[in-house]
Amino acid sequence: MTSLEHVSCRVRGIRGPTNGTKDASQKNVIDLSSGDSQKAGLRPLSFIRQVLAGCVYPPLLEDRTFPVDVRQRSETLLDACEERSVGSYTDSSGLDHVRHSIAEFITSRDGVPCSASNVFISGGSQRALMVMVKLLAGTEWDFPTGVLTPMPPPLTLPMLLDEAGVSLEPYRLNKDHKWAVNVDELYRTLTTARWRCKPRAIFISNPSNPTGHVQSRKSIQEVIRFAAAAGLLLLVDEVYQEYVFGDGVEFISYKKILFEMGPPYSDTVEMASFYSISSIGECGLRAGFMELVNIDPRVMHFVDTMLCTDISTPVMGQLALDLMVKPPKPGDASYHTYTEEKKHVENTLKWNCWRACEVLNNLPGVSCESAVGGVYLYPCVNVPVAVVTQAEEREVEAGALYCDLLMEEQAVLIGPGCSCGPPAGTCHFRLCILVSSDILEEALSRIQNFHRGLLESNPEM
Amino acid sequence: MTSLEHVSCRVRGIRGPTNGTKDASQKNVIDLSSGDSQKAGLRPLSFIRQVLAGCVYPPLLEDRTFPVDVRQRSETLLDACEERSVGSYTDSSGLDHVRHSIAEFITSRDGVPCSASNVFISGGSQRALMVMVKLLAGTEWDFPTGVLTPMPPPLTLPMLLDEAGVSLEPYRLNKDHKWAVNVDELYRTLTTARWRCKPRAIFISNPSNPTGHVQSRKSIQEVIRFAAAAGLLLLVDEVYQEYVFGDGVEFISYKKILFEMGPPYSDTVEMASFYSISSIGECGLRAGFMELVNIDPRVMHFVDTMLCTDISTPVMGQLALDLMVKPPKPGDASYHTYTEEKKHVENTLKWNCWRACEVLNNLPGVSCESAVGGVYLYPCVNVPVAVVTQAEEREVEAGALYCDLLMEEQAVLIGPGCSCGPPAGTCHFRLCILVSSDILEEALSRIQNFHRGLLESNPEM
Repeated sequence: MTSLEHVSCRVRGIRGPTNGTKDASQKNVIDLSSGDSQKAGLRPLSFIRQVLAGCVYPPLLEDRTFPVDVRQRSETLLDACEERSVGSYTDSSGLDHVRHSIAEFITSRDGVPCSASNVFISGGSQRALMVMVKLLAGTEWDFPTGVLTPMPPPLTLPMLLDEAGVSLEPYRLNKDHKWAVNVDELYRTLTTARWRCKPRAIFISNPSNPTGHVQSRKSIQEVIRFAAAAGLLLLVDEVYQEYVFGDGVEFISYKKILFEMGPPYSDTVEMASFYSISSIGECGLRAGFMELVNIDPRVMHFVDTMLCTDISTPVMGQLALDLMVKPPKPGDASYHTYTEEKKHVENTLKWNCWRACEVLNNLPGVSCESAVGGVYLYPCVNVPVAVVTQAEEREVEAGALYCDLLMEEQAVLIGPGCSCGPPAGTCHFRLCILVSSDILEEALSRIQNFHRGLLESNPEM
Repeated sequence: MTSLEHVSCRVRGIRGPTNGTKDASQKNVIDLSSGDSQKAGLRPLSFIRQVLAGCVYPPLLEDRTFPVDVRQRSETLLDACEERSVGSYTDSSGLDHVRHSIAEFITSRDGVPCSASNVFISGGSQRALMVMVKLLAGTEWDFPTGVLTPMPPPLTLPMLLDEAGVSLEPYRLNKDHKWAVNVDELYRTLTTARWRCKPRAIFISNPSNPTGHVQSRKSIQEVIRFAAAAGLLLLVDEVYQEYVFGDGVEFISYKKILFEMGPPYSDTVEMASFYSISSIGECGLRAGFMELVNIDPRVMHFVDTMLCTDISTPVMGQLALDLMVKPPKPGDASYHTYTEEKKHVENTLKWNCWRACEVLNNLPGVSCESAVGGVYLYPCVNVPVAVVTQAEEREVEAGALYCDLLMEEQAVLIGPGCSCGPPAGTCHFRLCILVSSDILEEALSRIQNFHRGLLESNPEM
């Protein structure tokens, strides 16, 4: 995991909290830096796992080990695999059956037709995004390709753009308006970017990773009009579409609004939207998909070819995607359990959001805007001056040093974010709240001990 | 699958066989072009699937659904996963537990210590190979990096080198000596290559994909001495090490021989060797690994970082790797079944090799050297003159056209290989024999009908 990488640069010299906490080496590490909910104590959905177990070892389907709808789904999915085996390769863009299930899900979600031929399955949404970005990068221009990128961005996005050889052109999300997208800022970024690159796409995360903002219909319309005017491809991360919990807030897809707006938008604005199995916690199975809208069929052919280099997306992940977009229906044997388990996750997330904000906002020098969607909080911390001074001496970011110390002293991993300065040393942190409430409570307690301890034990600086 | 791609260029104008065969559209497609044994009718190993099912849905471990050793292995593997879930991410280079199992397997295979820290798990051996090739490509030289590459190569290797921006420097395998590696040819290739690139590695496939050759101890020693003299990294594809069936032929790993040779070879020659779960037929689970030998620790750090871009190898595949390298032992409840199932696969492969050679060598204009290892045959076919003429008119390769026609008329997929000319139109085909014997028999029958029909129905050309 990349998330552990910054830890390898160990930190010495600043006294940590001394108020009776155990040394971190005696504690289990709590990782709130990544959106890995099962690692953080949330349980998988039984229906998903039962169907997958039946597909892995089909003799389980011969008796009543599993409910009848589980057995039926396993049989259907096995029929979709080559020779009924999850061990066979699939087409590079995924199993036809699963692509059709996804297309049905999108059609029903948006009330706008989606064709399975526009759906591409890959080993996680990042893989699909990389294919699109590499396609953009592959032009004859001497000028590099630019991608308008939100600040703060999802954790791995800058690295991905860098690897693809594409220029990251930052647009600031509006912190003073709950991290909304500001269309004036988009135009400003575009104008600046044109001096140094050929801007070809804009990346949007909605619900936002990591700010927890969810865009309104009006905001999405503005972004679509901007993309149309600027001739940019929309790269829309809608991975956390299931997780919207703010009062009166709803998720509306870019696709839905694009088609509400009608021509010329609905038949010209190019878009790729991304979704992932990580959103049901099954990160380790590795699968995601994208829908392409208004993309030239010749480009779609290249997408297929580029996905070929992966040979085949993990089949277990593909089957889990099918189950994610087509869960049990009322009347199915597994419906009740499934619904209860889903509800538990949603309630946990909502509670965690409230609880974490309460604790963090009570800490001196910490403020945390409540999220209305997604799985992250993005609090702002006035890093104690002792840490800022040391960070300057070591020529590292104060936020990164704060994270290292928190890991060293309390075995809690959070991710450093953008600066919120001035003053220097004021910065954001990303903190995943899709975790079990027990674990969150323990993590918050450790963060409190650490932060208060740091303030108390370094009064001289 | 890339294997279907060339089919999209449909072919018209040549009369196919007319001897009463059904139209291909009424037949199921038999794919002998890729090494996907489960797609081709071989069954998965029960032990592997039972353990995986237990890991996917742990309540299955609470009763006697599975044998005791299966339940124990599932428990052990669950303990190795974060929070005992296959849905959690793992470290980018793989689960520690599995890396240790692999290291034990290699140590025991070679009698030479292997450290788990030198083992890197990835989503298939191709992913690991790509990381190594990209590392090689990343130099400051204006000159491109070159990789000495066997002709014929494994199917996807040229595409992979091309994607990495590396120059493919071909060395011919010696057809007159059962496709052995000829060290004089290696020196000739190296000398030529130096005019246009900086050669930095040599790729070897042993047992060979697609020729079926298995290198002798002496041949491996020669290649190692060559790599040492030329300062090349050895990239060794040992994916089919389990499949050696020629009388008196055995698989010996490059690592074992490198250490037999002692210093300076054993402590200076850099090597990456690759293995994959595809070799037990579980292609769809996507996992493989490489062992790095004599690689600078700083480079190993980069390897880790580059594997990070995949975030995490599919967990189900990683667990299957563990089972592949640590199968049931004598006395274990699953030992007998596992051994019988493995024996069945080995016997099938050996029988298929004999049977396919018998049928192919009886066809006019076809000759097929028997393989002694691996999962492919590589017959040479004098493509009928009717096809050669048409191919010239269409500016396509005669071999590719022959494959297209075979697919169109008989729904059998085989892959075109290198030319065996002169005369023009004499070329090789790759044909996977790790398939069920029934399916192979049907495929051979269709190939016979096609080839004889083509000869009979185009007498005028």
